Amino acid sequence: MARSTLFRAVLALAAAALAAGAEGARGRAGASRLLAWRGGRTEKVAVIGSGNWGSAIAKIVGQNVLDKPGFDKEVRMYVYQEKVNGRDLTEIINTEHENVKYLKGVKFTENVVACADVGEAAAGATLLIFVTPHQFLGSLCKPIKGRCARGARACSLIKGIEFDANGPVLISDIIKKKMGGMDVSVLMGANVANEVARDEFCESTVGYRKEANGRAWQRVFDCPTFRVSKIKDVAGVELCGALKNVVALGAGFCDGLGLGGNTKAAIIRVGLGETIQFCKMFYGGIKDQTFLESCGVADLVTTCFGGRNRKCAEAFAKAGGKSGWDKIEKEMLNGQKLQGTITAQDVAKVLRKKGVAHKFPLLSKIHQIAFEGAPVTDIVKF
Amino acid sequence: MARSTLFRAVLALAAAALAAGAEGARGRAGASRLLAWRGGRTEKVAVIGSGNWGSAIAKIVGQNVLDKPGFDKEVRMYVYQEKVNGRDLTEIINTEHENVKYLKGVKFTENVVACADVGEAAAGATLLIFVTPHQFLGSLCKPIKGRCARGARACSLIKGIEFDANGPVLISDIIKKKMGGMDVSVLMGANVANEVARDEFCESTVGYRKEANGRAWQRVFDCPTFRVSKIKDVAGVELCGALKNVVALGAGFCDGLGLGGNTKAAIIRVGLGETIQFCKMFYGGIKDQTFLESCGVADLVTTCFGGRNRKCAEAFAKAGGKSGWDKIEKEMLNGQKLQGTITAQDVAKVLRKKGVAHKFPLLSKIHQIAFEGAPVTDIVKF
Repeated sequence: MARSTLFRAVLALAAAALAAGAEGARGRAGASRLLAWRGGRTEKVAVIGSGNWGSAIAKIVGQNVLDKPGFDKEVRMYVYQEKVNGRDLTEIINTEHENVKYLKGVKFTENVVACADVGEAAAGATLLIFVTPHQFLGSLCKPIKGRCARGARACSLIKGIEFDANGPVLISDIIKKKMGGMDVSVLMGANVANEVARDEFCESTVGYRKEANGRAWQRVFDCPTFRVSKIKDVAGVELCGALKNVVALGAGFCDGLGLGGNTKAAIIRVGLGETIQFCKMFYGGIKDQTFLESCGVADLVTTCFGGRNRKCAEAFAKAGGKSGWDKIEKEMLNGQKLQGTITAQDVAKVLRKKGVAHKFPLLSKIHQIAFEGAPVTDIVKF
Repeated sequence: MARSTLFRAVLALAAAALAAGAEGARGRAGASRLLAWRGGRTEKVAVIGSGNWGSAIAKIVGQNVLDKPGFDKEVRMYVYQEKVNGRDLTEIINTEHENVKYLKGVKFTENVVACADVGEAAAGATLLIFVTPHQFLGSLCKPIKGRCARGARACSLIKGIEFDANGPVLISDIIKKKMGGMDVSVLMGANVANEVARDEFCESTVGYRKEANGRAWQRVFDCPTFRVSKIKDVAGVELCGALKNVVALGAGFCDGLGLGGNTKAAIIRVGLGETIQFCKMFYGGIKDQTFLESCGVADLVTTCFGGRNRKCAEAFAKAGGKSGWDKIEKEMLNGQKLQGTITAQDVAKVLRKKGVAHKFPLLSKIHQIAFEGAPVTDIVKF
């Protein structure tokens, strides 16, 4: 089978990284063994969420369960019901196989079935993909818990972070708690939803706690255009996915001010440095290799050049910081919410509470510009 | 003194990085102590080279020697003589204080003096900045050696790599040998010449062998818009500067093919991974921190989005690989040469000779596309 250069490059790196703790989809043992179905029960996958990213991943997963053995061929997707041109969104998806509101122009395989009832979506599922804004988890987890299969495992694709009196709280830990101790992996990486949906090549990283579950999730997601490696570092992988959205706001401010690539590269570099520092300050077991995986440097780069947080921050800067985020989201995101602004606020609270904001000057300044009236130009007044 | 956010961010990271082996311009000891002149002899700086990057750095250095104590106020710059509209380029520079051919629209301070004779340019210099294409070193070093001050030290800004029967040879080591064992540091970083010349903020990294010389070079280059950190890792810093130009060809191929940010981010990530692998395969004492400095991830990012190698590779891809590099250079670079294509060839030779090309599939494929007729689309046939 002919394989592309980049794919082989990824394989070589993955092989090299094995010793360092990261495992590529086709590491030493070869494709057929590592990703082959080892038998056992049939897995049934459900996707909880159907926004831009949820729809893109449902497209990937819908195809994968058809292509690989060991999966129930139906993938249910929970859809928050709304009317589009007078029709229920679920009805549109189930007849036209397209989420016309959040991922227009991309067809699902027909085995992807939209459900407006989250319990029905999760019924019998052994593998639950969480891909909703994290503020909706509270109301969703209870009905899922009552209906999913015994021994089900979860994977969070949610990019964000919560916090409590003791510091940051991983979304994966919130899901774990709400789901009665369920094992929760995470999937993060350089994967802007629209590009993934168009089958453009990209990579992603599964962060796992239990090896068998990391392998199971790798099988669910990995396909020729969406290459998934895995690493035993849930916190590092998840925090990369959260913090890069904040750094992307800074990159967007640069773009809005019309600055050059040097400045933006400096912001990306400093942002990566503060991300590493944040992870190690609040969690143990963080692996350096995590930041060189797709979830680290690659996701940061692609988000700082292509994602919605960058785009909205650019608009914010062009409006001189006078346009509110709600207005920008409404005008530019068709009803979707920015994660970067939510995360920037949460991170700022955590850092201030712990008295370490001065050690994270970039993340802190982005918050001040975004929410406290600091002039946008502050980020580049050298 | 008011300092910008990003600058403070850099400071905080620099402080955090001190323990890890990298030293920011204003680390623990504070700006005034670390960068202050400690007395001793007056340093006389010469710039050997006057292309786009040489001219940009001469602008920075010319201002710095005026602003800081301990420097002879004249900075001589070796200029390869040529006629521009019937006038000698040196004469234009010395009357209009502008390199109208390679850095149009940017004025030098008047203490930057162009010399067409390299020996005259280097006469009495204690600090020699090498910033010419590396193929010119052979003819330049001898006259410099005869005229520079006793105990002079060098800093190479040359991005490239040579090789001999035993593997890669650092340009800094070539200079060291040609200059009779002179200590040679290197300066690399996320600094596209035109942006540096416009005083847009950027960062850079000095790689040094001797602490005192690293400090001296930091003083020569560091200024508010051009922030210089230093790290004791000449090989790592220098190889980052060489290999990123090759990776940028791959990024340019992506752009020329109209691919999205995910693919480009994957190429950048794999390119960084192969760079780290290359450094560690051929040199000892490589520091992981080096790749998180400006010379590492930041330079790679800015070069893959903004530099001339990316731009020319994009043109190459758009022409379907049918337009020769000589023609592209002539049309797009006003007589300047690409480093990435030269380095790609040198790297490919080294890797093949050592029998390890298969461990560097991305670097190898870029070479095949650029020089061996492989279709440009090969880089993204997944």
